[in-house]
Amino acid sequence: MIKIIEAKKKDINSIVKMAKEMADFHRKIDDYYKSGKEHEKRLRALALKSFGKRNIKALIAKDKNKILGYGVASIEKPRDYVRHKKIGYIKGLYVKEAYRGRGVGKQIFNKFLEWFKSRNIKYIELSVDSRNKIGISVWKKYGFFEYQKKMRMDL
Amino acid sequence: MIKIIEAKKKDINSIVKMAKEMADFHRKIDDYYKSGKEHEKRLRALALKSFGKRNIKALIAKDKNKILGYGVASIEKPRDYVRHKKIGYIKGLYVKEAYRGRGVGKQIFNKFLEWFKSRNIKYIELSVDSRNKIGISVWKKYGFFEYQKKMRMDL
Repeated sequence: MIKIIEAKKKDINSIVKMAKEMADFHRKIDDYYKSGKEHEKRLRALALKSFGKRNIKALIAKDKNKILGYGVASIEKPRDYVRHKKIGYIKGLYVKEAYRGRGVGKQIFNKFLEWFKSRNIKYIELSVDSRNKIGISVWKKYGFFEYQKKMRMDL
Repeated sequence: MIKIIEAKKKDINSIVKMAKEMADFHRKIDDYYKSGKEHEKRLRALALKSFGKRNIKALIAKDKNKILGYGVASIEKPRDYVRHKKIGYIKGLYVKEAYRGRGVGKQIFNKFLEWFKSRNIKYIELSVDSRNKIGISVWKKYGFFEYQKKMRMDL
């Protein structure tokens, strides 16, 4: 029985480990991104800083004592060209490879959805690498649509 | 003979007017965006604040005394998952409708390219609305590629 619960300080090591896996996944796509190792210190500092903040929520998926995945979401002020005063932001959502395809990510996302609704959020946003085809199709399945492209030119 | 020159304080009204046109273009695509009118105050404040900053460059395209377009670019610290310490960012580039198709945008962009190169920038980035097909094709022509999608879900 998988439970989605609020992350506690003792979970930070597990979360950072998963976040490092996600960073390594992106580094393999594009060396524009930091590797897990290069990003670790900053990830840990961010996790510690974020704990207990009213506008940040960190969840983990647990099966007995095993952590299967995690998610981090926030409530933020959007860019200044946006009409709305606050948006929900999915900062990261990750399920360990061995536990994918069982709806764990959806369960985490649904908890964020409840949280956003309780805070009167009307817009939920996220960024996904354009080459992460699986990620994009999952977000589409959850109800997201693409509204902007981030483009880059490497000199 | 079109010249690309640094914007001066006296050009702010023209620049804000063009930025408002760009905002209205986006608002027509998606009511997520502020209209030109809703954005004007903030645009003007930003323009005033940005003047003379070493890491921001505002250019205008002029033909005799007529301003045909403008561009704003900056040098910034990227998101913390990015390996590099600084990136070039194209914040806006706009050519008045009547003057499009003559390479004015490209001339402005080339000036930014020179500036970025002189500051040892290796990555130039920008965001473009996914429904702005002309914008996307122009940026591709200039050498940009899509590396991330921004996705949204409206509750």
